[in-house]
Amino acid sequence: MKIINQHKTIRKYTSRPISEELLQSILYSGTRASTTGNMQVYSVIVTREDEMKEKLAPCHFNQPMVREASVVLTFCADFNRFNKWCLQRKAEPGYDNILSFITAAIDALLVAQNVCVAAENEGLGICYLGTTTYMAENIIDILNLPKGVVPVTTVTLGYPAEKPPLNDRLPLDAVVHQEQYKDYTEADIDRIYEEKENLDSSKQFIEENDLETLAQVFTDVRYKKADNVAFSQKLLEVLKRQGYMNQ
Amino acid sequence: MKIINQHKTIRKYTSRPISEELLQSILYSGTRASTTGNMQVYSVIVTREDEMKEKLAPCHFNQPMVREASVVLTFCADFNRFNKWCLQRKAEPGYDNILSFITAAIDALLVAQNVCVAAENEGLGICYLGTTTYMAENIIDILNLPKGVVPVTTVTLGYPAEKPPLNDRLPLDAVVHQEQYKDYTEADIDRIYEEKENLDSSKQFIEENDLETLAQVFTDVRYKKADNVAFSQKLLEVLKRQGYMNQ
Repeated sequence: MKIINQHKTIRKYTSRPISEELLQSILYSGTRASTTGNMQVYSVIVTREDEMKEKLAPCHFNQPMVREASVVLTFCADFNRFNKWCLQRKAEPGYDNILSFITAAIDALLVAQNVCVAAENEGLGICYLGTTTYMAENIIDILNLPKGVVPVTTVTLGYPAEKPPLNDRLPLDAVVHQEQYKDYTEADIDRIYEEKENLDSSKQFIEENDLETLAQVFTDVRYKKADNVAFSQKLLEVLKRQGYMNQ
Repeated sequence: MKIINQHKTIRKYTSRPISEELLQSILYSGTRASTTGNMQVYSVIVTREDEMKEKLAPCHFNQPMVREASVVLTFCADFNRFNKWCLQRKAEPGYDNILSFITAAIDALLVAQNVCVAAENEGLGICYLGTTTYMAENIIDILNLPKGVVPVTTVTLGYPAEKPPLNDRLPLDAVVHQEQYKDYTEADIDRIYEEKENLDSSKQFIEENDLETLAQVFTDVRYKKADNVAFSQKLLEVLKRQGYMNQ
């Protein structure tokens, strides 16, 4: 599958806007994804206005894609609509728990990936923003998300203004297990990460940050324990506030 | 995008096996999905052996697809491999929290959807099994998943032996919001769910279960509060056991 196999994250976009017709068609492809029990317990928030991009940008650590992309899409787990339907139809919803949040998050993420594949098929470039779950509380306020709605990922969309090379991946057999999980030996780990560790970009990361290993770039710079713990506590608070922790 | 727009869940398969070459190519397409920081914190467990399908089937409420599909794929959030790498490289991983679990689950789900699109592009049929998160504990034991590894979804794969019609979806504007979330009025809910409620299949569900509304089929039969609460408690235990609740 050429579109999927040639996927590259695009962080630089031209100023060409995405037409409403194209966006609708891409979003429609999103909604064709499988969802649990066909409940469609997700929502997508479209951001086109500069004012809203300006508000969202700090939630994504001011990564320039948010301000520069033609469209920003926030994909949300959403039982609010379904719960309202239940209550209007003499049915008592029981979806205020962590299982239901995960169910809704799965729905939202399969839609997101369909949207990305459909967008790339139309010549657009996409970038996922992992910051969404870190800053969910702020995004909820900015996008006016009611109880039952939690943002799980964000995608920026635009016409590409860069042509990056294909990114490295671990060998396929490093992430695929036959019949049962075979845990990794020290030698396995050395083999699996060898190519990644030998990339020029990896060596540059280590040097720039004055570190000893590439793994330290992740643990000491990019995804630090203290940050993860703080954002985890915030995320649990968000799940409580949005009504998903009543098991 | 024809492949995506024509997606139908396939639950009946012919006995034709999926070749190893084809499976590898589909899984490769999976790994081209974006992942957070290109950490690839997921694993895929391939089930082909009848004995393993037999063990997994009860975890998926004995839905016949598990035994009948040529291949069953269990997609897992997996920080185990990454953590091992960190520890071998003088780096202290801080990924034993709920944020990291969600990060890894996102990785796994984007891979899963890529795999499904690639599979359908090759003429295969797919079915997602939402039971994975309900029965995660049992799946962990059967697939021998170590600490740091949690199954988040399962996909059955095979050559289609049925041609179901395209499934209904809510109107596009029901799941897409412009700039901010516009909460639903009673009239909105009536409009959004009208088509779904008027399907013959919906009327049949209501009659078969001797209920008054379609929403009650979800709340009283398919996804009951008592089940959700019980599975939520189990899932939280699993997250603790697998080392993701140390924030």
